Amino acid sequence: MKIGVIGGGQLGLLTILEGKKLGVDFAVLDKDPNAPASKIADAWYPPEKVKSFVASCDVLTYEFEHIDPRIVEAAEKSGKLLSGTLPLLLKQDKIEEKRFLKKKGYPVPDFWAAENGAEALRLAKELRRPLILKISRFGYDGKGQFVVKSEKDLKAVAAQVAPVKERFLIEELVAFEMEVSCVGVADRKRAVRFFPITQNDHVDGILLKNRTLDQPAPVLVKQVQRHLKGLVNDLDLVGLLAVEFFVGKKGEIWINEYAPRPHNTGHYTLDGAETSQFEALVRVLVDLPTGATGLLAPCGMVNILGLDMKELDLKKILSVEGARLYW
Amino acid sequence: MKIGVIGGGQLGLLTILEGKKLGVDFAVLDKDPNAPASKIADAWYPPEKVKSFVASCDVLTYEFEHIDPRIVEAAEKSGKLLSGTLPLLLKQDKIEEKRFLKKKGYPVPDFWAAENGAEALRLAKELRRPLILKISRFGYDGKGQFVVKSEKDLKAVAAQVAPVKERFLIEELVAFEMEVSCVGVADRKRAVRFFPITQNDHVDGILLKNRTLDQPAPVLVKQVQRHLKGLVNDLDLVGLLAVEFFVGKKGEIWINEYAPRPHNTGHYTLDGAETSQFEALVRVLVDLPTGATGLLAPCGMVNILGLDMKELDLKKILSVEGARLYW
Repeated sequence: MKIGVIGGGQLGLLTILEGKKLGVDFAVLDKDPNAPASKIADAWYPPEKVKSFVASCDVLTYEFEHIDPRIVEAAEKSGKLLSGTLPLLLKQDKIEEKRFLKKKGYPVPDFWAAENGAEALRLAKELRRPLILKISRFGYDGKGQFVVKSEKDLKAVAAQVAPVKERFLIEELVAFEMEVSCVGVADRKRAVRFFPITQNDHVDGILLKNRTLDQPAPVLVKQVQRHLKGLVNDLDLVGLLAVEFFVGKKGEIWINEYAPRPHNTGHYTLDGAETSQFEALVRVLVDLPTGATGLLAPCGMVNILGLDMKELDLKKILSVEGARLYW
Repeated sequence: MKIGVIGGGQLGLLTILEGKKLGVDFAVLDKDPNAPASKIADAWYPPEKVKSFVASCDVLTYEFEHIDPRIVEAAEKSGKLLSGTLPLLLKQDKIEEKRFLKKKGYPVPDFWAAENGAEALRLAKELRRPLILKISRFGYDGKGQFVVKSEKDLKAVAAQVAPVKERFLIEELVAFEMEVSCVGVADRKRAVRFFPITQNDHVDGILLKNRTLDQPAPVLVKQVQRHLKGLVNDLDLVGLLAVEFFVGKKGEIWINEYAPRPHNTGHYTLDGAETSQFEALVRVLVDLPTGATGLLAPCGMVNILGLDMKELDLKKILSVEGARLYW
């Protein structure tokens, strides 16, 4: 079996490292032959060779969402993309993602759409409450996001927001007690297994660290899993689905966003779960049983971004008993 | 950092898969560019390019012992082989390995050396006790080994043994209750950490399966670790050392053999230990802390040999909860 991975980043690399153990072959589509996953794959294809890439693989997956529409189309046409393109297309526009979630009855923070930066500023001024302004397309890891809690904040971001010609999603900043997420894996029959829930700490929209919840409230687990399973069905998804939630003081929850792929809040599964999220994905792709998703030991993850390996004191980091590094 | 791995087999593959997580680069020396580790390495070199291979790497290791002396010499000369060549040279001749162990005071079964097959048969006849006859050089996985428990056995193997011109190691078959092994990892200062002890089942000299001991007798653990640590010092070894033992009914132990590399009785560490044997080796090679070697969960391993993947009912195997496959 050969799996085609669209995208050559770290999530693709870890999928390949886990899949290699199972004897699976991989091709990667990415413009960079030296991207982490491109380098380790059995075959690498640049985007202009998407047809050969698709033809060479038995099944396709992706490790990020912002994929060129022509590539999505070629993947879709081949019938080798198990999930269809809905989960992908929605992820390309935050307004559409939010509207979909609301339409399907999932709890989401109040939100509004603005045609451009100027309109977003006007709306934010009228709404007079804590908000987050997000450029609707192509944002990730907090890029293109502006938190506005006061008139002062609004003035501070105005110069950056006003000239933007893109649409904005404006979202109420809900008063949450914690952020949690859960990764689920759906097999070809849409049977879903859930990895343990983590509590996440974001700074400026970027995941800084997370840890598995020691004794999650059963009512929280039930809600999280119900929504995740519901979304698998509504998106008609096969493979991984990660969902991020805000949890309020009274236990109320809102969906923040979802990702139809391996997720950085699930990295801990590489060491802490009976099967990693990456292996679970590979198993589904090659039509093998998903594997157990239970927790082996409580664990946490710290995200390292924007540093060269030489800038890290690896000896100190790895002298922590039980600590492991994924570069 | 770039690690050079001599040998392109499965143990090399798993070393690379684990090392890639740590951001380490790998070159492999093997005659076959399609060997498991050759395919996934950042660079592959055939044996005739050993000089370029050695020059391109910061540090060297090996994943099997039966290495061409010219390669051993080139590796040794470079100063990049942390362990020196003694552990390797001894492994190339079972008689020398046994003599070394005995000389250093380790408990080993009684043994004798024969110049060739005919002499081995004569000696075996005289000795009149359960024996195992092993061709002294180049044997592995039970190849070139002959169990002789009776006159009848001796007659049965005579036709195969008599014409062999190689030297034979003749070893008493000790009456053991179980076979156990332990993998240890020595850092550059020869500080040794021990992975949990496993009980192993061999059939015809080949490891069929093993499992971690639930509650190993403290006296057994103490002896095993003492011998392993002693051998690290006597071999002046850096990296992994696996030692196989026979355990008698009264708790007496004998060393069967050692391996100065990742060992198949330590495969369970990939999922069952806080750090795998492969990652521990990589950490030592790139001078990082060894990592914790504790058990995460009791586990066992079944060795699959000589079958094509298509001959296996993978769906059935992987429907066992918690089961993982390494091809």
